[in-house]
Amino acid sequence: MDTLETVQQKLETMNAQADRAYLRLSRKFGQLRLHHLERRNLLIQSVPGFWGQALQNHPQLSSFLNSKDKEVLSYLNSLEVEELGLARLGYKIKFYFERNPYFQNKVLIKEYGCGPSGQVVSRSTPIQWLPGHDLQSLSQGSPDNSPSFFGWFSNHTSIESDKIVEIINEELWPNPLQYYLMSEGARAEKGKEGRPGAAKQPVETPEPGAKKPK
Amino acid sequence: MDTLETVQQKLETMNAQADRAYLRLSRKFGQLRLHHLERRNLLIQSVPGFWGQALQNHPQLSSFLNSKDKEVLSYLNSLEVEELGLARLGYKIKFYFERNPYFQNKVLIKEYGCGPSGQVVSRSTPIQWLPGHDLQSLSQGSPDNSPSFFGWFSNHTSIESDKIVEIINEELWPNPLQYYLMSEGARAEKGKEGRPGAAKQPVETPEPGAKKPK
Repeated sequence: MDTLETVQQKLETMNAQADRAYLRLSRKFGQLRLHHLERRNLLIQSVPGFWGQALQNHPQLSSFLNSKDKEVLSYLNSLEVEELGLARLGYKIKFYFERNPYFQNKVLIKEYGCGPSGQVVSRSTPIQWLPGHDLQSLSQGSPDNSPSFFGWFSNHTSIESDKIVEIINEELWPNPLQYYLMSEGARAEKGKEGRPGAAKQPVETPEPGAKKPK
Repeated sequence: MDTLETVQQKLETMNAQADRAYLRLSRKFGQLRLHHLERRNLLIQSVPGFWGQALQNHPQLSSFLNSKDKEVLSYLNSLEVEELGLARLGYKIKFYFERNPYFQNKVLIKEYGCGPSGQVVSRSTPIQWLPGHDLQSLSQGSPDNSPSFFGWFSNHTSIESDKIVEIINEELWPNPLQYYLMSEGARAEKGKEGRPGAAKQPVETPEPGAKKPK
């Protein structure tokens, strides 16, 4: 007959089994996921201007981008969202840029994590602007405190209502192709009524290496 | 050769597979866990005063209990922590009492969940005190705003630093036997130096039905 002690031991053994099973599952799918994401990154890099286009096409995100942002983001050749730790303790958003007239950095990273007292904190790579091209100090002089990508990138005070990070993590990163194709869908529908669902229809994937018309 | 579209589809198929696998695992261990917990509850109920003793013996929790609390908690014959939803959206702590001279309720529930704007909120069963035994209104007149179990039970303003719920959920509920046995360990060690690890040593489980000496 079971005693309280043996039942307690069974419970603890089971909890340890469960922890191991979750870890195994998490590792298995984590590796599979990584494999697919690496393939996806490679294919995306062979489509010039993919990420800049996808960011611009996102219906909510585009309102946070000014015309200078769009120009700079056309040099973005890779974007990665990396989760830190199995328990989703934080994440890094990495923006890889090709050589461009604005800054020297090859990669700009914005990182979110847990602060010492449990609150969310962020930090980002200092941008090495080239002379006369510092979009951050240029925009500070603007009369309307208008939203901008680089303003967001270096701002660490309004994390609680960070709409941009929400869009990148929950919409663009899970399915960037959907947003990249959005304008093509819209163009194909030119003259007809705009259909918000157009991007979700089966459409041809752009061929690697094909330059997308501006 | 994979296109961006087929890789994206593989990624999404894999995500759906992962979600299903996690759900299966969570259901499997959830059922096993429930089975062991039900057995444990039954065994505990056959040891009179088990929970009252376990609560009192907890080194940190005891400082939140005044002498009246301890008297009332000797009538506690079952305690359950129930998680709400698979994603741990909240939980209920259920205190089952036998007939006692203090209140009419058979069960007092304190429940924690997510409020409309994402913050943690709690609520609890209104206690039907018997005339002259309302520990809540009696303690309000005390000069030192001293901590009490029933003050905690009906207080919903300091959830962020709710030490009592932390102790119940993370220490007592996972292994109540350890705390129940603590005083016995201490008694066995009487005259020797107090050893904090004593409760974790293998000790005999109290026989069902055996009344614990006060």
